[in-house]
Amino acid sequence: MTSEQFRRYGRELVDWIAGYLARVEKLPVLSQVRPGEVRARLPEHPPVAPEPFDRVLADVDEIILPGITHWQSPNFFAYYPANGSGPSILGELLSAGLGVQGMLWTTSPAATELETHVLDWLAELLDLPPKFRSDGAGGGVIQDSASSAVLCALVAARERAGTADRLTAYASAEAHSSVVKAVRIAGLGRAALREIAVDDRHAMRADEFARAVQRDIDAGFTPVMAVATVGTTGSGAIDPVPAIGEICRRHGMWLHVDAAMAGTAALAPELRYIHNGVDQADSYCTNPHKWMFTNFDCDAFYVADRRPLIQALSVLPEYLRNEASESGEVIDYRDWQIPLGRRFRALKLWFVIRHYGAEGLRHHVRRHVELARQFAEWVAADDRFELLNAGSRLNLVCLRHRNGDEATRRLLDTINASGRAYVTHTSLDGKLAVRVSVGQTRTEYVHVERLWELLRSAAG
Amino acid sequence: MTSEQFRRYGRELVDWIAGYLARVEKLPVLSQVRPGEVRARLPEHPPVAPEPFDRVLADVDEIILPGITHWQSPNFFAYYPANGSGPSILGELLSAGLGVQGMLWTTSPAATELETHVLDWLAELLDLPPKFRSDGAGGGVIQDSASSAVLCALVAARERAGTADRLTAYASAEAHSSVVKAVRIAGLGRAALREIAVDDRHAMRADEFARAVQRDIDAGFTPVMAVATVGTTGSGAIDPVPAIGEICRRHGMWLHVDAAMAGTAALAPELRYIHNGVDQADSYCTNPHKWMFTNFDCDAFYVADRRPLIQALSVLPEYLRNEASESGEVIDYRDWQIPLGRRFRALKLWFVIRHYGAEGLRHHVRRHVELARQFAEWVAADDRFELLNAGSRLNLVCLRHRNGDEATRRLLDTINASGRAYVTHTSLDGKLAVRVSVGQTRTEYVHVERLWELLRSAAG
Repeated sequence: MTSEQFRRYGRELVDWIAGYLARVEKLPVLSQVRPGEVRARLPEHPPVAPEPFDRVLADVDEIILPGITHWQSPNFFAYYPANGSGPSILGELLSAGLGVQGMLWTTSPAATELETHVLDWLAELLDLPPKFRSDGAGGGVIQDSASSAVLCALVAARERAGTADRLTAYASAEAHSSVVKAVRIAGLGRAALREIAVDDRHAMRADEFARAVQRDIDAGFTPVMAVATVGTTGSGAIDPVPAIGEICRRHGMWLHVDAAMAGTAALAPELRYIHNGVDQADSYCTNPHKWMFTNFDCDAFYVADRRPLIQALSVLPEYLRNEASESGEVIDYRDWQIPLGRRFRALKLWFVIRHYGAEGLRHHVRRHVELARQFAEWVAADDRFELLNAGSRLNLVCLRHRNGDEATRRLLDTINASGRAYVTHTSLDGKLAVRVSVGQTRTEYVHVERLWELLRSAAG
Repeated sequence: MTSEQFRRYGRELVDWIAGYLARVEKLPVLSQVRPGEVRARLPEHPPVAPEPFDRVLADVDEIILPGITHWQSPNFFAYYPANGSGPSILGELLSAGLGVQGMLWTTSPAATELETHVLDWLAELLDLPPKFRSDGAGGGVIQDSASSAVLCALVAARERAGTADRLTAYASAEAHSSVVKAVRIAGLGRAALREIAVDDRHAMRADEFARAVQRDIDAGFTPVMAVATVGTTGSGAIDPVPAIGEICRRHGMWLHVDAAMAGTAALAPELRYIHNGVDQADSYCTNPHKWMFTNFDCDAFYVADRRPLIQALSVLPEYLRNEASESGEVIDYRDWQIPLGRRFRALKLWFVIRHYGAEGLRHHVRRHVELARQFAEWVAADDRFELLNAGSRLNLVCLRHRNGDEATRRLLDTINASGRAYVTHTSLDGKLAVRVSVGQTRTEYVHVERLWELLRSAAG
């Protein structure tokens, strides 16, 4: 592609994206295609000769767009937000344009140093414990996801424990599925994860946790790590981190705090209570790619002591040796993650923080929390619905129809079939629940109000 | 950021990238900054108020660019190419603009179906065995890297083996460091990887492999997986895959073939010999993000049978259940990888294949192989140098100064300090070697010729 073509198609695509984001709220949120429908429109064989780029872009509209579930729609209330923003998209574009591979400091010093710096900024913005900043023994790194973060935490915890034998790990029954996945991948065995019972707010019961640890120790196991969740996926529950941390410390266990979505709330000082006890954690993660206007993928993972992580993950073949690494003066982030290679992801986070500023970020997060509060009030005031997570709400509202699962299922189906909003479900206390996750960049009062109207009318 | 601002800054950034790629060959390839120099220019604290985007972009020039090692320079001959291209950058931009999260089919059907389809296309372009295509029991998936691919292969192999006890894995002493890393992460224990001796061409000795497997079986171990490398990082050596495959089959072991860089060569029919024996593999990977004009990250990972992979990695909490998944008619790629979330990475690969066409891709790859051959001829004809990998060259040339390691080290230092090219090193047969990796998108005869002049003059 010539430079002139790149400029032309690049501008067209920028305009296309601007137009898409302006009209996305009119599109059916959940894609309406049937399985196989997208593939059926693609040619069976790859092209032999080059194709004009105009045709490629036309196919984006005709073939791809109908198969998109619009995560960037302000009417997207499903799962969790994977919100983005103008500066973040541009950060991703610049990263692709520079095309650097930041596996080592030397392979692009700016990629490493900006990442370290911006993660220190984020720690400051969220008022995380100082031990997670890079000026001591700890520091932050961008992972692709909280799944990879918890896997890294687990291999570091195992390294620190000094044994791989009969290890056990702990998380609440409401913890994210990535904990189960990490335990499997790390080879602890499926039975090694103890799922600790939750209380009536769906938070881990610290007493049950303490009992499980003691039982395992008595049986000859080595408890290696606990995952405390700040904001569960199901209902936004916040585990009692101070009590869990106390138990971990007593037994020399690694404490990982997973605040994948909720962590962003700590931008607002009045919401920082969510991080009570995090000063006892060995590692912590939150995802700017969920609720902080930064495109997926951008998980911020912090460790209080980087040594066990690096010891677990560093493999140094001759072809990666270099003077800077050997000087000990630099960070080589390849040793802080599963893969070797890495994109320059700090750019988008840097762009977002500078574009919004601390005030701007705080403003939007407060707004989402306020919208969720408003929605929850409406739900609570309507006899047909039961509000399920009044105590741990932040930006997530869970509810059910008082007539039971079937009626709740109808709510979900009716809303999603309308194309005017997208919500997903979970199971709470064995019963079906609708999750309303507020956090899309463009979600305003009007969208939440429309969702409420949809919900009311679906309830019959 | 308003729509108007996004259009304006987006266009500016597209132009900036076009300009950057046009002038990148004039920039010193290896960044000249000292450790800490980039960070020292960044403000200690994040901004409280929003900053104008102009200022952010100005800082890219002033602070970031000096800290970039220019992987997109045609004078980049280090490590391996992480080449990109116009269509690929635009694919990444579109992916960021759509901002979809493709963890499940239903969360954006087009993201899943395009990925399956384009990986079938790639299998056809490389003439991979039909079992890796999605119409049977196997199929392809995009991973971030070959490191994650080999980790996935290992957990699938363990799943299929049905035991996690006393497992052993095998790779040549020249295999990529990611194999060691995967074995550690998966918790097989550091001692579980057997590094098999190589022959004088740096390829795995199949006889040694067979002996190691037998020894382990006799000692009560369960050999679970072998990694055969097609194109080692050090010297481009190609392991004897047919013989290794035969041994794996005899013992029910999983065979993973790592063709991270070299696999792209199979675009050209006359180079497809590199894939001899791959029909015996259980999994295979190659990285379009290395030598196929597709921005990092884009590793194409194929399995002959997707069941053990999915069984190993699938965890299904209530909040991810959905009708499409339960119909069994769709692929949920979250179960084919370590993380849960995933970007729409198939777009860039689709854009690249359509923009170049099979002919275009082939043309460029042949050109790189031809340039490497030319360079190797010059080296071979000069008494001061020893050509080290004549037999397994493709796009990688390894050489040393006949006067020994110190003289070879001087070659490296002189070339890299000039800023006019960047080459890296490895150790072959215990001696230092210069690696010249040809594959940057814009590398032409003139760049290779200039590198040769630099090398000759550095040799004194």
